[in-house]
Amino acid sequence: MSQQTDAAEKQPGWNQKKGSWLTFRPDIKVLDCTVRDGGLMNNCRFDDDFVKAIHATCIASGVDYMEIGYKGARRLYSQQEFGRWKFCSEEDVRRVVGDAPSSVKLSVMADVDRTDYHTDIPAKADSVIDLYRVATYIHQIPATVEMIQAIHGKGYETSVNLMAISVVQEQELDEALEILCRTPVDVIYLVDSYGSLYSEEIQALTRKYRQHAEAAGKKVGIHTHNNQQLAYANTIEALILGTSFLDCTMGGLGRGAGNCPTELLLGFLKNPKYHLRPVMQCLRDHIVPMREKITWGFDIPYMLTGQRNLHPRSAMAFLDGPERKDYLKFFDTLAEQE
Amino acid sequence: MSQQTDAAEKQPGWNQKKGSWLTFRPDIKVLDCTVRDGGLMNNCRFDDDFVKAIHATCIASGVDYMEIGYKGARRLYSQQEFGRWKFCSEEDVRRVVGDAPSSVKLSVMADVDRTDYHTDIPAKADSVIDLYRVATYIHQIPATVEMIQAIHGKGYETSVNLMAISVVQEQELDEALEILCRTPVDVIYLVDSYGSLYSEEIQALTRKYRQHAEAAGKKVGIHTHNNQQLAYANTIEALILGTSFLDCTMGGLGRGAGNCPTELLLGFLKNPKYHLRPVMQCLRDHIVPMREKITWGFDIPYMLTGQRNLHPRSAMAFLDGPERKDYLKFFDTLAEQE
Repeated sequence: MSQQTDAAEKQPGWNQKKGSWLTFRPDIKVLDCTVRDGGLMNNCRFDDDFVKAIHATCIASGVDYMEIGYKGARRLYSQQEFGRWKFCSEEDVRRVVGDAPSSVKLSVMADVDRTDYHTDIPAKADSVIDLYRVATYIHQIPATVEMIQAIHGKGYETSVNLMAISVVQEQELDEALEILCRTPVDVIYLVDSYGSLYSEEIQALTRKYRQHAEAAGKKVGIHTHNNQQLAYANTIEALILGTSFLDCTMGGLGRGAGNCPTELLLGFLKNPKYHLRPVMQCLRDHIVPMREKITWGFDIPYMLTGQRNLHPRSAMAFLDGPERKDYLKFFDTLAEQE
Repeated sequence: MSQQTDAAEKQPGWNQKKGSWLTFRPDIKVLDCTVRDGGLMNNCRFDDDFVKAIHATCIASGVDYMEIGYKGARRLYSQQEFGRWKFCSEEDVRRVVGDAPSSVKLSVMADVDRTDYHTDIPAKADSVIDLYRVATYIHQIPATVEMIQAIHGKGYETSVNLMAISVVQEQELDEALEILCRTPVDVIYLVDSYGSLYSEEIQALTRKYRQHAEAAGKKVGIHTHNNQQLAYANTIEALILGTSFLDCTMGGLGRGAGNCPTELLLGFLKNPKYHLRPVMQCLRDHIVPMREKITWGFDIPYMLTGQRNLHPRSAMAFLDGPERKDYLKFFDTLAEQE
């Protein structure tokens, strides 16, 4: 297998494999969203030391982007209830990332209809953030287009993360992708919100996303959840089929069953720019202790919602209760709702 | 997708996909090896109640085979050190499975050079065991052939589980498969002993195994380990490509990082003969309590041996020690050995 170039004319078509497990591709970007997706498990209440440690680990391990939190509207979210990474003020971000130039770019997630992007997002020249990731549902597409245009107009890189597509009709998805491809967005993300997608579905969707995106000169990304122990498997499946932006989190720290673990993904990638050793140190010093504060990762209730293509909220509520190991009871509860 | 028939002439070729995630195939056999592979974590010291519960769960959930232990030679293994499921006497097996006819077949694993098969395995007419699975390494192929012939001659179904193939040269593997296909063995297993194989390798190996096996009228099976969180993903990959015998364990209970969980596999299979509810009950009543006695499942040291295509023994020893969470130390130890 030989190293591929970035030149578009040498890229294989959207329906072909793009490299194998021995290849490394310069278009690959690893995006660690530990602080952002993990923040869904503690209302974004990570202390500065933890966020600094993740940032230092991203730099040392060669990760391309670090997602540091949300740009939530202060009129919608209580600052008593939510920590500072729900808002990601320039001041807070600068305090933890420091002033030194860094090899890792910074991203922030901005939910459609929950972000005051006109007022809360400054021009890129006044910000240390590089990429805004616009998170949206299918019914919010018109508002999404406006938001992408506005944030792009401020000078940022942008991605769009279309969520919960496993419950979207294919024709609607096609129409949404067409509309999104007419915006200036840089990256279109395939998002498995419920951890319900199997490899064959990931394959078909990756081909669909690439077909739309590459015709418009855009990249494709993937964001997975581990409800069925497929987060990593589906990420490398999408990677092999040409996906460029790969989301992961240290120790899989993320909502519910968690995400594709950074340590598995970096172990797979053969590009010598990535280093696993700093991640081992981060796991030992920061992720293992975090497990005493918050609980995440594969468990049977998450598997059951994933298998049924349901939002994990009922599993999260059940696992917060006293009967968390009564898997039979949760199974019967779900069966009764069908 | 329509239901496929068992007739050989209607089977797709060895190089094609065999069904999709919505298909169900009558050739599929689910083999639960909780007691056998789990026995590697406690020297086969499961009490009768646990083994009875797994047996009852296999029957209720539609599992096709239950593997109850090893046929270890008593001259090699101390009966003080090892529990009764290291030996699987007819008496012990009959005591837990009872006399009633059952829908689940019973299998026992027999290691080449560690089984006194001439004396310890009776004729099938005098046994409740249905299938002997001959476990072997590449250098034991001549002894394996003799053993398969002898056990087949006693009237049993047989499989051969060729272990550690991730460190075997392809030409040697081809030669071994050719030789094994000339024996009367019924099923040839693709075994990922180190949990090191990626989906593309599983695909290529499944095609190779099917090509050899189907020319000889044999089935292919798969047995995976979860070192890289790929046990389930690789099992369904092999399944889609035509593998018939699928190994799994309740809660993934098995050596080191464990195996493909029965609950994930049954949730994937669309054949209405399989039922998930009894497995939920078994997990709650027997597997959750077992986690207080023995430790198994994905952990970073297993990931590191899997990524480096090493036997998990060094990870198992490290995780038994006081520094089990010092992932950096284990990483450095492995790196020094390269």
